[in-house]
Amino acid sequence: MKVELINEPSLELVDKARSECYDKPIHTNPEKREKSINNVCNVYKHSSLLEFADYIFEITADTKVLLEMSRHRLMSMACKSSRYTLDKGEVIFEKVGDPEIDIHLSKWKTVIEDMIALGKKNDQVAMMLPQAYQYRWLVKFNARSLQNFFNLRLDKHAHYKIREVAQEMYKLIPEDHKFLFSK
Amino acid sequence: MKVELINEPSLELVDKARSECYDKPIHTNPEKREKSINNVCNVYKHSSLLEFADYIFEITADTKVLLEMSRHRLMSMACKSSRYTLDKGEVIFEKVGDPEIDIHLSKWKTVIEDMIALGKKNDQVAMMLPQAYQYRWLVKFNARSLQNFFNLRLDKHAHYKIREVAQEMYKLIPEDHKFLFSK
Amino acid sequence: MKVELINEPSLELVDKARSECYDKPIHTNPEKREKSINNVCNVYKHSSLLEFADYIFEITADTKVLLEMSRHRLMSMACKSSRYTLDKGEVIFEKVGDPEIDIHLSKWKTVIEDMIALGKKNDQVAMMLPQAYQYRWLVKFNARSLQNFFNLRLDKHAHYKIREVAQEMYKLIPEDHKFLFSK
Amino acid sequence: MKVELINEPSLELVDKARSECYDKPIHTNPEKREKSINNVCNVYKHSSLLEFADYIFEITADTKVLLEMSRHRLMSMACKSSRYTLDKGEVIFEKVGDPEIDIHLSKWKTVIEDMIALGKKNDQVAMMLPQAYQYRWLVKFNARSLQNFFNLRLDKHAHYKIREVAQEMYKLIPEDHKFLFSK
Repeated sequence: MKVELINEPSLELVDKARSECYDKPIHTNPEKREKSINNVCNVYKHSSLLEFADYIFEITADTKVLLEMSRHRLMSMACKSSRYTLDKGEVIFEKVGDPEIDIHLSKWKTVIEDMIALGKKNDQVAMMLPQAYQYRWLVKFNARSLQNFFNLRLDKHAHYKIREVAQEMYKLIPEDHKFLFSK
Repeated sequence: MKVELINEPSLELVDKARSECYDKPIHTNPEKREKSINNVCNVYKHSSLLEFADYIFEITADTKVLLEMSRHRLMSMACKSSRYTLDKGEVIFEKVGDPEIDIHLSKWKTVIEDMIALGKKNDQVAMMLPQAYQYRWLVKFNARSLQNFFNLRLDKHAHYKIREVAQEMYKLIPEDHKFLFSK
Repeated sequence: MKVELINEPSLELVDKARSECYDKPIHTNPEKREKSINNVCNVYKHSSLLEFADYIFEITADTKVLLEMSRHRLMSMACKSSRYTLDKGEVIFEKVGDPEIDIHLSKWKTVIEDMIALGKKNDQVAMMLPQAYQYRWLVKFNARSLQNFFNLRLDKHAHYKIREVAQEMYKLIPEDHKFLFSK
Repeated sequence: MKVELINEPSLELVDKARSECYDKPIHTNPEKREKSINNVCNVYKHSSLLEFADYIFEITADTKVLLEMSRHRLMSMACKSSRYTLDKGEVIFEKVGDPEIDIHLSKWKTVIEDMIALGKKNDQVAMMLPQAYQYRWLVKFNARSLQNFFNLRLDKHAHYKIREVAQEMYKLIPEDHKFLFSK
C-alpha cells in the first residue's frame, strides 16, 4: 500500500472565494486566513467554499479499498484497468495480515499467473482476482468531500484496509490545512 | 446473475416538469406525451427534465460488475456488506464461462469456506473473495443518468459481465420508455 | 408563496436498502422501521441509504428563493421559463413586507407590464424582473440532501424568504418521516 | 460584464490519469498528448478523465446569468452576497441593449439607492434587484462539465446574456485545450 499526494493543495482559492462572498480583502497572513476560513466554513457551515481546494492522491492499494473508495461520489477517479494491464505486469496482492490466509492467497496468485501464461483473456482472468489484488489509481477530492471521507473512513468502524489508506492520506495533508479535518 | 426492476417507473413527472417549464398543460395521451418528451429532452437537449423519472433495480451479480457500476456517480446504491453477511450465508460465485477458470474458482471457494469455518474474521476473509464473487445491491438511476449508463455499458467494448447486466436492465425498461434509451 | 408536496414519500425503500446491506428482513412494523433507520442512518452515519426516499415539491415563490435553492446541487429542478411564459400570463410579485418597498414594486410591475404590452422581447424584459418576481418550479430532493437543505435553510441566519419556504416544506413532510429532519 | 480565467488550467493531470488507466507512460510532446487525450476521452467516450482539468473563472455579470449558471450542478460556485454587500458598494446594472428598458432600469436604480439610503434592510432591498443587477462570483468547472456547459450555452438558443458570458469564457480557454470544446 502506498499513498502519494501529487498536487500542492492550497487554501488561497478558498480564501478568495470567501473574499468574493463578503466583498472583503483576501488574507496575506496565513494564521488570519486559517482563522477566517475556519469561522466561515466550519462554524457558519458555509462549506461550499471548501470545494475550491483540491487534493489529488495516487493510491496503490487492494481491491477492497478501491471498492469502498468508489462509493464516494463527489470525487474524480482514474484507475488502472485490468483489461489492458493484467497480462503485462506483475500480479501483486496486498498482505491481509493473517498468515494462513496470506499463504492461501500466495498459492492462488500462482494459479492466476498460470491462467495468464496460458493466454486466457484478461476480462476472464480478472474474475479470479481477489479483493487483496493491488490496483493503482488517481483520486481527486475537494476539501468538503474529503471532510466527509475522513469522517467515515478514519473511524474505528471502517474496514481496516481503507482506514490504513485514509490514515496515510491524512498524514499527507499539509499541516496548515489540518484544522479542516478532525482526525 | 439476476436483475429485477423493483419500482414502477413513470414519465408522468417528466411530463409535469416539461409542463412547468413552458406553462403548458400536461399530456393525457401517452403517444403525445412521448413525442413531447422526446422533442424537449432529446432533440432540444433539455435533459435535466429526465431526472424526474427513476429506475430502481435489485441486482445480483459479480464483484466486477459492482466495481464498474460503482464508478457511475449520479445514482444511489445500497450493497450487501461482506462484513455482516459473509459468515451467515452461502458463498456464491458467478460463472466466468471458461471451464478451466471455473474449476479453479470452485476449488478456491472451498478454501474460502474453510477459512470462514475456522472462524477467521469476515473483514480478512473478504480479501480472498474473487471478482466472480456474487454481491447483491439496489441501485437507483434517474433516466438522464441511465442514458449515460446504457451508452457506455451496452457498448460492445464494455466488459462482458457488465454488458450482460446492462442488457437485462434494458429489457426491464417499460416499452413506452424505450425511446429514451438507444440500444 | 405556495408549497405543495406532489409525491407520496415513503421510507419503504430506505428500509429495503438497509435490509440489503445487512441481509436482514425488512420491517413491517412502522415504529421498528423508524427506529432501525434512525439507528443505521443517523447514529451510524450510513446516510447514503436515505437517498432512496424522494420528496418532490411544487413551489411558487420569488426569484430570491429560486436563486438560493438553485445553489443546492444534489437535487433536480424544473422551473417555469420567463422566455416562454412572460408575455402569456400575469406578472406577480411576492410581498416583501416593507410597505414602502412594496409600493415601489407595484409601480415597477406596471412599467414591466407596459414593456410587455409594447411587444419587447421576453429575453430583454426578463432583465427588469426583480427578485420579488414569482416563479414556479418543481424540485426533487432525496432525504439525505433534504437534511442538508433544512439544516441550512431553517436556520435563523437564512434569508427570511427561503426560511419561509423551508418551513412550509418541513410542515409537509409526513409526520412519521420527521425524525429524519431536526427542525 | 467581465470574465477572467484565474487559474492556469493544465492537461497534464488528464494525461497522467490516462497513463494510470492503461499503465502507459505520460506524454512529453504536447501534440501527442493532445491526440491521445482526444482519442481516449472524446472518441472512446472515457470522459471521466477530463475531470482532472479544472477551469476557474471570476465572472462579473447580471443576475440572469447567475440564475442560469447556478442550474449547472457539477461545478463549484462562490457568489457575492447581497446581504453583506448591498449597502456598502455601488449598485450596478448590466445594459440590456434596449434603450427604453435601459432608461427605466436606470430610474429603478435610483429608487433602490434611495431605499438603501433610508436604511432599509439589505435582505428586503434585495427583493427589488432586477435580473440586470450585476453580481460577481467564482465558478470552477472541470473540463467534462465545461463541455456540457458550452454545448448548451454557446448554442444560438441560449439566452443572449449567458451566451455572451459563455463566449468570453470560451475565448479564455488556452488554445491547446480548445480541441476539447466544440464551439
